Amino acid sequence: MRRLLLISNSTLHGGVYLDHCKDQIKNFLTGKVKTVLFVPYALQDRDGYADMAKKAFNEMGYELESIHKQESPPEAVRNAEAIFVGGGNTFRLLKTLYDEKVVEEIRKRVLQDGVPYIGSSAGTNVATASINTTNDMPIVNPPTFKALGLVSFNINPHYLDPDPNSKHMGETREARIKQFHEYDDSPPVLGLREGCMLLVEDNKATLHGRTDARLFERNKEPKEFSPGADLSFLLS
Amino acid sequence: MRRLLLISNSTLHGGVYLDHCKDQIKNFLTGKVKTVLFVPYALQDRDGYADMAKKAFNEMGYELESIHKQESPPEAVRNAEAIFVGGGNTFRLLKTLYDEKVVEEIRKRVLQDGVPYIGSSAGTNVATASINTTNDMPIVNPPTFKALGLVSFNINPHYLDPDPNSKHMGETREARIKQFHEYDDSPPVLGLREGCMLLVEDNKATLHGRTDARLFERNKEPKEFSPGADLSFLLS
Repeated sequence: MRRLLLISNSTLHGGVYLDHCKDQIKNFLTGKVKTVLFVPYALQDRDGYADMAKKAFNEMGYELESIHKQESPPEAVRNAEAIFVGGGNTFRLLKTLYDEKVVEEIRKRVLQDGVPYIGSSAGTNVATASINTTNDMPIVNPPTFKALGLVSFNINPHYLDPDPNSKHMGETREARIKQFHEYDDSPPVLGLREGCMLLVEDNKATLHGRTDARLFERNKEPKEFSPGADLSFLLS
Repeated sequence: MRRLLLISNSTLHGGVYLDHCKDQIKNFLTGKVKTVLFVPYALQDRDGYADMAKKAFNEMGYELESIHKQESPPEAVRNAEAIFVGGGNTFRLLKTLYDEKVVEEIRKRVLQDGVPYIGSSAGTNVATASINTTNDMPIVNPPTFKALGLVSFNINPHYLDPDPNSKHMGETREARIKQFHEYDDSPPVLGLREGCMLLVEDNKATLHGRTDARLFERNKEPKEFSPGADLSFLLS
């Protein structure tokens, strides 16, 4: 049974790291999980990042070990009770997942063994079909934009509505996603505003958190969904 | 003699397409140029895009032909008197330049034959060393992020200062460029704010327009430059 908690962002403005989603994380990591395997590959300072994540998870009552301290990353994935992939730069994260040969391992563990997967921001991006709808700068080039494929659609984390007062002429987020949907066979894109998250349990998907999500589909008008909404149709 | 006019953005807020840079374009395209070859590959609607560009260039006194209407794009480049590459999605633009086999052709024409090159936004991005510092969404995957290499540094068009009132937690533009500079041998990145442009004539580079540019270099503090500034040191 596939279990995913895909969070838009790790920190809300003025808040503390993971504070806005700690209840959902605790509900998600049921009694059996004692230690979470952390993947800090999206940031350069892996030690500092792992320390921050460890503190947050310890306060929630879990141990945390970072994959970058393990001798064999694929072996660490094979032994993981739960996986948390943190945010940062999505291109760097996906490239490192391929470089460290853990893409197939994570996919197997989550889809075949039912190991719970938590992603935040870039960690949510890489859980989806591809990183084609990341907001990040392409500072490095992964071998492919194809990602873990734990779900068959895409997510745009940190989804941002257009600012009506802006004089900046760069494309809005919605315009960018529409350009993605100019291509045949482009999958739906769920825009998760900061503060919201998607819970996937086998073939059921539910929106959680405190903000709404906006769903984009090729040749369709965007649709809004509020926390509690059933988005299971995206999984079929 | 290499001649480039690299514009941050084609339209200023509330303005008309290419209006803020038409004087610089007319000064740049000296008397000999009658027809400009337009590259509309960054947008899906190539016909509509070419019509808009044709209107703007006709008003400046030039003919414009779009490369997508030519039987052989490489042949069109070999015959071009001047080249204008328009903005849109940088990934789509670079992929199509490779697909149409014009990357080497444009490079040769500009660097060996001195054909004037005008780029705007994505068209400016692809003129540089790589597209590693584009702001665009990676909606398609080009074979490489290596670009035309008409200059050896990178540019970030539509450069945007942090908004002190924002509650959005996505990385600022400066934070994104700093992540690029975490990598060894990453070249300088010139952040061109909307309204400014870089004129390159052989080994001389000068800032033009109405806004300042911000230069980022690995392991250095960012520096500000105003219109008129000599940036030739970036070319060496």
